[in-house]
Amino acid sequence: MPKLDPDRLFPVDARSRSLARDLYGPIKDLPIISPHGHTDPRWFAENHAFADPAQLFVVPDHYVFRMLFSQGVPLEKLGVPRADGGAVETDGRKIWRLFAEHYYLLRGTPSSLWIDHAFAEVFGIEDRLSPATADRIYDHIADCLTQPAYRPRALFERFNIEVIATTEGPLDDLRWHRMIRESGWAGRVITAYRPDSVVDPDFPGFAAKLDRFGEITGEDCSTWEGYLDAHRNRRVWFKGFGATSSDHGHPNARTENLPQSDAAALFAKVRAGKADANESDAFRGQMLTEMGRMSLEDGLVLQIHPGSWRNHNPGVLQQFGRDKGFDLPMRTDYVRALKPLLDAYGTDPRLSVILFSLDETTQSRELAPLAGVYPALKLGPPWWFFDSPEGMRRFRENTTETAGFYNTVGFNDDTRAFCSIPARHDVARRVDCAYLAGLVATGRLDADAAIEVAHDLTYRLVKQAYRL
Amino acid sequence: MPKLDPDRLFPVDARSRSLARDLYGPIKDLPIISPHGHTDPRWFAENHAFADPAQLFVVPDHYVFRMLFSQGVPLEKLGVPRADGGAVETDGRKIWRLFAEHYYLLRGTPSSLWIDHAFAEVFGIEDRLSPATADRIYDHIADCLTQPAYRPRALFERFNIEVIATTEGPLDDLRWHRMIRESGWAGRVITAYRPDSVVDPDFPGFAAKLDRFGEITGEDCSTWEGYLDAHRNRRVWFKGFGATSSDHGHPNARTENLPQSDAAALFAKVRAGKADANESDAFRGQMLTEMGRMSLEDGLVLQIHPGSWRNHNPGVLQQFGRDKGFDLPMRTDYVRALKPLLDAYGTDPRLSVILFSLDETTQSRELAPLAGVYPALKLGPPWWFFDSPEGMRRFRENTTETAGFYNTVGFNDDTRAFCSIPARHDVARRVDCAYLAGLVATGRLDADAAIEVAHDLTYRLVKQAYRL
Amino acid sequence: MPKLDPDRLFPVDARSRSLARDLYGPIKDLPIISPHGHTDPRWFAENHAFADPAQLFVVPDHYVFRMLFSQGVPLEKLGVPRADGGAVETDGRKIWRLFAEHYYLLRGTPSSLWIDHAFAEVFGIEDRLSPATADRIYDHIADCLTQPAYRPRALFERFNIEVIATTEGPLDDLRWHRMIRESGWAGRVITAYRPDSVVDPDFPGFAAKLDRFGEITGEDCSTWEGYLDAHRNRRVWFKGFGATSSDHGHPNARTENLPQSDAAALFAKVRAGKADANESDAFRGQMLTEMGRMSLEDGLVLQIHPGSWRNHNPGVLQQFGRDKGFDLPMRTDYVRALKPLLDAYGTDPRLSVILFSLDETTQSRELAPLAGVYPALKLGPPWWFFDSPEGMRRFRENTTETAGFYNTVGFNDDTRAFCSIPARHDVARRVDCAYLAGLVATGRLDADAAIEVAHDLTYRLVKQAYRL
Repeated sequence: MPKLDPDRLFPVDARSRSLARDLYGPIKDLPIISPHGHTDPRWFAENHAFADPAQLFVVPDHYVFRMLFSQGVPLEKLGVPRADGGAVETDGRKIWRLFAEHYYLLRGTPSSLWIDHAFAEVFGIEDRLSPATADRIYDHIADCLTQPAYRPRALFERFNIEVIATTEGPLDDLRWHRMIRESGWAGRVITAYRPDSVVDPDFPGFAAKLDRFGEITGEDCSTWEGYLDAHRNRRVWFKGFGATSSDHGHPNARTENLPQSDAAALFAKVRAGKADANESDAFRGQMLTEMGRMSLEDGLVLQIHPGSWRNHNPGVLQQFGRDKGFDLPMRTDYVRALKPLLDAYGTDPRLSVILFSLDETTQSRELAPLAGVYPALKLGPPWWFFDSPEGMRRFRENTTETAGFYNTVGFNDDTRAFCSIPARHDVARRVDCAYLAGLVATGRLDADAAIEVAHDLTYRLVKQAYRL
Repeated sequence: MPKLDPDRLFPVDARSRSLARDLYGPIKDLPIISPHGHTDPRWFAENHAFADPAQLFVVPDHYVFRMLFSQGVPLEKLGVPRADGGAVETDGRKIWRLFAEHYYLLRGTPSSLWIDHAFAEVFGIEDRLSPATADRIYDHIADCLTQPAYRPRALFERFNIEVIATTEGPLDDLRWHRMIRESGWAGRVITAYRPDSVVDPDFPGFAAKLDRFGEITGEDCSTWEGYLDAHRNRRVWFKGFGATSSDHGHPNARTENLPQSDAAALFAKVRAGKADANESDAFRGQMLTEMGRMSLEDGLVLQIHPGSWRNHNPGVLQQFGRDKGFDLPMRTDYVRALKPLLDAYGTDPRLSVILFSLDETTQSRELAPLAGVYPALKLGPPWWFFDSPEGMRRFRENTTETAGFYNTVGFNDDTRAFCSIPARHDVARRVDCAYLAGLVATGRLDADAAIEVAHDLTYRLVKQAYRL
Repeated sequence: MPKLDPDRLFPVDARSRSLARDLYGPIKDLPIISPHGHTDPRWFAENHAFADPAQLFVVPDHYVFRMLFSQGVPLEKLGVPRADGGAVETDGRKIWRLFAEHYYLLRGTPSSLWIDHAFAEVFGIEDRLSPATADRIYDHIADCLTQPAYRPRALFERFNIEVIATTEGPLDDLRWHRMIRESGWAGRVITAYRPDSVVDPDFPGFAAKLDRFGEITGEDCSTWEGYLDAHRNRRVWFKGFGATSSDHGHPNARTENLPQSDAAALFAKVRAGKADANESDAFRGQMLTEMGRMSLEDGLVLQIHPGSWRNHNPGVLQQFGRDKGFDLPMRTDYVRALKPLLDAYGTDPRLSVILFSLDETTQSRELAPLAGVYPALKLGPPWWFFDSPEGMRRFRENTTETAGFYNTVGFNDDTRAFCSIPARHDVARRVDCAYLAGLVATGRLDADAAIEVAHDLTYRLVKQAYRL
């Protein structure tokens, strides 16, 4: 059988499959719009070669190493750096062999789809990864990586990326973005404003970060007004590096809209480290509404990524640090949580708030009903564990009937794994075409309308929603 | 392609599709039983022509105008009346053009299925609504509406409605129902008892409504016993206008079964406006059990529609009033909430309680397990946002294995949109046939049993459950 | 049509169906591994004939009698024994006729699949059960039951059961297990350690049971250390009768990991009957962590079955006792609840904790993300209401993309209904093959890998996870 089934992810009956092909044909080669993700701008700034296959496919990919860890493979042996300075494997080939030995664990997961796609399409590899093929594939990729065609900028162009957004904190100096801009390279790499480290009182070193925030913005972060001005200032500065959105990763979707005097008092308490858990939560909630207000002034789109219990395991956090696959979904409420923000600005069509969720039960119950009526709300695509064929299918099935297609915003790859970007967008395009083919095959949508919707979901809606 | 696919909503593979056709054939023309809905009895009483196409399809349909509003179309421009007296568009043609311009927003939603079906089957329209066809379709419908065949009673007969229930409050004088009855017209239009306005302490003007309730029933609503007697009295009076059910729209499914002395004390507090939020909630819960008790006396079926956050946006409520598409689902508990009622009467097969839900997660986890064991409980069909092909499919998939078919009660159209009634019932019939065809095709149900079930779901169960 | 469709539960389109057949062929006759269930060891010890068809198929099967009860059939008439000594029907034929009359209620449920399978495959019955066939089928089964080939051990062998686990409490003397062992019969029937009655302070007669626990283990159950030693002692003794697992049926998944002095104080309070609801809950939670600790010593696998509201109806509990179909699912949290246990031992690959759930919303949101990263966690198969084709399909769709196949543990039949065991395993095998066929047909899994996975899900993973 071919390495990649050309009809993968399409419906299985002949008529729907044929309809899906007809929808996919015109959109499969559309440029990639990547409005939210975690690629490293330094790649594009320096344009150095990637280190080795393990550093490209294993070490930074928490989807991969969490699965191997779940089956007893120590993270150290996969080369995952230790935060506490402990030794880890550095021999790329050894890591790769261990990866190959356990590659079967990824059967049925999106990771295997992405990796197989990258192997085939990016590196021209026809074999499945296994202990038998591990060395051959390693050598092949390693050889490719020495070639100019596999440098970050060359891949960016080959991937047909029209624009990609990275994510930076307010204290970042955006040096790599500056370097990209000054290099004269035409690739459009933009930043996004992710102020969690100076918004979330539970962030390690919060107070010191506030001080630093004041310094770099020239605002007085000891006062509420100065602190808000620091955000205003920094948002504008981020816009100078292409930012069209802010992004907020909170434990929940709580918003607050306190009188400004109360908000100022809450800020003072938070700043002094005297806020209790509920007050810290309220402060994060207040800041979402403040960010909404600033959005109305400066036009940045407001993304909310709530509902993740970050760094669930203290042992792993201590040894390996953050973002090691231990961010776990929690039940999330939106209808109640967003009310203060929505009471204030929800019916204002000038505001654009993009909601994400790790709790699929909210899709049909809360998210689609909310986005289907509030002009300010749009639904982000399936996130983290749900960036997958089944996750995407459920998202469409759960949201379309109530929110339609036009309250959604296309796809986010949201990834650090550069080579998986074409694969991820391809999966999204295929799943959307499969869904649309199903609607056509069951008489719920005209074929010509489906063609238009497929294009909108792939290209137009994301540009419009993110103001790109 | 034909305007309406004759195989719409059926499975796509040839064998299952053929099975679905075989199941649908014998039931597609069965009379419509509509045991719960919101059509206006005045239509049938006066039998006046409907005003214009916009007044028929846009202005009263919150599914439609909420979607357009979500994309920035002001409700005023859609002719939605303002509660605060502000001006709104009254030119039907202008509203219609705006609707046509945004009709693509409804792609993939049940509204587009219903509207296309009504256009084709009720008005004989072959074109899809679009800016290009807007005027032609408007003129055609407007012309139809002037004809006797499009008066409410004629449509009622053409729709093959055997019986339809409207919903009225206890303070309603049922004048339209009286006029229908006195007119000698044979159409069976019955009422249903919806006492929220005199049961829910949070209802605006609750105390005054209680006074009025006492007046019209001749009972002393200043005492708990008198108040209960007023309900008894009014239920019997509603039965005189055909009512076979009561209906209760509460924020949650909480029930209570307090000692009568405690209930009387709670009523006194509630009546005096001194109840806190929890006491008001307890009172609503107590009243569900009281209604259950009355059901055992008078035989009215008890419908519970819980879990909607009504009028979520205060600005829209103030400007446009209730029922403007801002009723949003909330997480709902049943297993704990219904226990007091079920402890008292749950195992009594003479009681018939029909449960609805806006929280699909409860279908497999709570509703089916409850209805699959308690004789008093039956499951109502998918409600509001879930009255849709995917919603109906999920309902059957989530409930059948545990509650079977015979603890469900057929379909409710639950609508104000008169012309959508045949479409809605047709969607339900098709989705049920598709589901049954799937069971047959996968060896889970005999074909002859499936034919029987299809008939039961369409006709027999609804008459039996609602005692029609 | 044939009584049992040979392609039942397979996908309907020709290609996927053919793929499913290819996957099912090699695994359909693999031995049954039944690591968790509720068959009665006495059957295999005494090897007496089963009493009559009603005693085999109706009286002990709460899936069946709860459905009939939900439609108004009194449990007494179905022969369900009364706990309060009240009279019940004892005439097997009368019970059977009532069952046959209401058999249509089970349409679309897994019970009908199991019963039809048992009729056809175990008893060679070609007819569907109905009032017309009731007597003929009754006579046929009754006749079979008199034959040696239908004794428990003969059926065990015919069912190709490699090993089956029963479930016993710590106070059980395992006499039947001893008798089986001493009989020289080669059938492998093992026990499992289910200590709820001496762990759950809400269990009736808890204090007396603790005393008895001390007596039979020779430990001092008046102290925390002695109580823990009693468990250690009894676990080892159960291991002597083949136990490889413990099992815990708690209202929720709460775990605690208190300092031992606090745990000892909590035990004293619980033992004295002075614990409040929260303390009792904490104690159960503490015991899960203690059982985890003991697992690390003695190797027993730790099964957690949380989230059931046991004996929901007090009237039925009083009249008929426990396990009468009134155990109802509740919303269940895992991410927060398991944290104390996971903080302590979650990353230790030597520990094996198998999680079950009655709340399907946790599958994609909590269970798969947890099992996909914590080495100590595995996911048990769909339980109770979800041991069904749709339940199994949803389980794979909801968990595979995040936890893969290898963090799941194959199938549990978890049943008292002996004749349904082959049917249940067959359903699981078919649904897994259908799911795998879908992955192959949509290019998500290689066909040869699917064959391996099918075998693993049926045989290898369950033996490995349960250390059999």
